[in-house]
Amino acid sequence: MSDVAAPVSRFERRRANTRRALIAAARQILAETGESTASIQQIAERADVGFGSFYNHFETKTALFDAAVADALEELGRLIDELTGTIEDPAEVFAASVRLTLQLSARHPQITQILRLRGLQHVHSETGLAPRALRDLARGRDSGRFQIDDPMIALSAIGGAIIGLLQLNAVADLDARAGEQMAELILRMLGLPQDEAHAIATRPLPDVP
Amino acid sequence: MSDVAAPVSRFERRRANTRRALIAAARQILAETGESTASIQQIAERADVGFGSFYNHFETKTALFDAAVADALEELGRLIDELTGTIEDPAEVFAASVRLTLQLSARHPQITQILRLRGLQHVHSETGLAPRALRDLARGRDSGRFQIDDPMIALSAIGGAIIGLLQLNAVADLDARAGEQMAELILRMLGLPQDEAHAIATRPLPDVP
Repeated sequence: MSDVAAPVSRFERRRANTRRALIAAARQILAETGESTASIQQIAERADVGFGSFYNHFETKTALFDAAVADALEELGRLIDELTGTIEDPAEVFAASVRLTLQLSARHPQITQILRLRGLQHVHSETGLAPRALRDLARGRDSGRFQIDDPMIALSAIGGAIIGLLQLNAVADLDARAGEQMAELILRMLGLPQDEAHAIATRPLPDVP
Repeated sequence: MSDVAAPVSRFERRRANTRRALIAAARQILAETGESTASIQQIAERADVGFGSFYNHFETKTALFDAAVADALEELGRLIDELTGTIEDPAEVFAASVRLTLQLSARHPQITQILRLRGLQHVHSETGLAPRALRDLARGRDSGRFQIDDPMIALSAIGGAIIGLLQLNAVADLDARAGEQMAELILRMLGLPQDEAHAIATRPLPDVP
């Protein structure tokens, strides 16, 4: 958690651990049910922390669940950033990110469930995947690589399309070819010609460690 | 409700009314919270029906909430079908549907909330908007109008993109131009050339009554 830098005292270490435990519990609950109606008592029990300590960290349950979604999406954002960090072309970054999100879903079921069930409500958030995507969209537009007008509209479309793909994957077991197809659709949407969109969407992916 | 055709006896009329009241209550709850954790007691009270009658209609709470989402999406599907029924070109149908969904959001806040908060989990369902869209995608592909491979992947992308737009509309107040931009992105995705996508996405819309 980026907002808790190297705690030094025993008190601060404990405090950071409690916050982490609450977020981990909320992530579990979200991944299991997609709902945020568990009571604070239930969350505290799941986190194995005292009921009273909840309010040292979060003003409301909603604030905790928002932090939990943000935490999961931030983790996914970092995973994908690491894998695509050496790619220069923003079109290739988008294509690889879409395909990697699908590919990582089996290995990271909790993050994937949270993204599928709650991610869309965070598609314009200031942490996680959204600001990374927005940065790449603006960059691609300014360099002429993407033919788009408002990057926020494009972000809504791309975020929704990726989550739609995860939803399809939850009811039909998709293969890597599905990720390529979705990447191709998204590149066309950004204004790439069809053969170039196809070529980029089917390029070898970075190895997932 | 299409599964309750012209009830004849007093018993059947009452039964249909109870079912309708339960679905209406579930739709209200979904639109208010997006969550489906209200108790059956709470739902029955909201519907003003006896607790016991719930199980004459639904086996589980999940079944009721699924039926409520399907009912709302079916209503939206009918609204849009009525408005776009005379359009021949499937590309123009998609563009108009996207723009109308945004335009109708102010007038139908309950349906819009349900679509935004729960619609994506129904993007591949067999009722509501999904089968209509799938039919038009397959038709457009077979006629060569759309350059797509698997219509289910395209449906995931389009459904996600529309809901992403409603999500953006919930945090930033969008104008009709945003609907045109999204329609244009979706037409490009389906393989239309950029100027044609732009022309179709900015055509005058059918009048909303």
